[in-house]
Amino acid sequence: MTPLKPRIWIASAALIASAGALAQQAPKPEQLIKWRQSTFQVLAWNTARVKAAVEGGGDARQAAKAAAAIAAIANSDVLALFPAGTESGKGWHDTTVKPELFKDGDKVAALNADFSRNANELARVAAAGDAAALKEQFGKLGKSCKSCHDDYRNTN
Amino acid sequence: MTPLKPRIWIASAALIASAGALAQQAPKPEQLIKWRQSTFQVLAWNTARVKAAVEGGGDARQAAKAAAAIAAIANSDVLALFPAGTESGKGWHDTTVKPELFKDGDKVAALNADFSRNANELARVAAAGDAAALKEQFGKLGKSCKSCHDDYRNTN
Repeated sequence: MTPLKPRIWIASAALIASAGALAQQAPKPEQLIKWRQSTFQVLAWNTARVKAAVEGGGDARQAAKAAAAIAAIANSDVLALFPAGTESGKGWHDTTVKPELFKDGDKVAALNADFSRNANELARVAAAGDAAALKEQFGKLGKSCKSCHDDYRNTN
Repeated sequence: MTPLKPRIWIASAALIASAGALAQQAPKPEQLIKWRQSTFQVLAWNTARVKAAVEGGGDARQAAKAAAAIAAIANSDVLALFPAGTESGKGWHDTTVKPELFKDGDKVAALNADFSRNANELARVAAAGDAAALKEQFGKLGKSCKSCHDDYRNTN
């Protein structure tokens, strides 16, 4: 390994030192991708529980708990799992995200806000035990999910 | 394939028909195992965000959102992901659950209730922005996680 010139070395060391506190905390891309793939699986579990209640045969209290979990996740800044540097890579499997997600900041933020709003409303009507409202709102949440998947997830 | 005797066939068909509504909803063991492995990953992501805030360098608002997600998941009946029939099997990977979890009903329920209580308290202090209380409560939640892992998770 060729030693760096002293001046460059000193500059690099200072940069590393100042970034140290952050770098210690920053999870690796593969970890972030695994967490986001897991997050969507947990959303799938909980939407399955709401779906079971909406379609009959499911338990309304389980649906209310599931809707509360969906809302808390939707409000927890899921976009923090999509930082620059995670456009490709492998978590549980190769990421299926499209590169456009990392370029369409405002549109993605708006879709995420829409997801949060719909998830909060789902949690509200599920807690109130209003079956008709739950069915209607579950449909709206599904559209919210789909609109983001259509634009930013590779399905093949 | 040998045809079943008519009387047995009729009895089997009736059993299948009556179980049909439930069977339609019931996810397969591999799906449940994948969901529970994902759930623990999402808990890991969110505890990492709280840890970052507790140890400095993390964002307090992210920590509050993360704590709310932990609480909602803890309240969402995670034990529903451990039904009989999921003692072994592969989700993202082979399950690491110990068989004792499926036998120690009361003890497991008590540990789960303890986890919920600690997670709800974490969400409360994180939302209040009390850094000292957050640190203390994060320690308590960690012990709650560990007590269950020690008894019911294989680590090798």
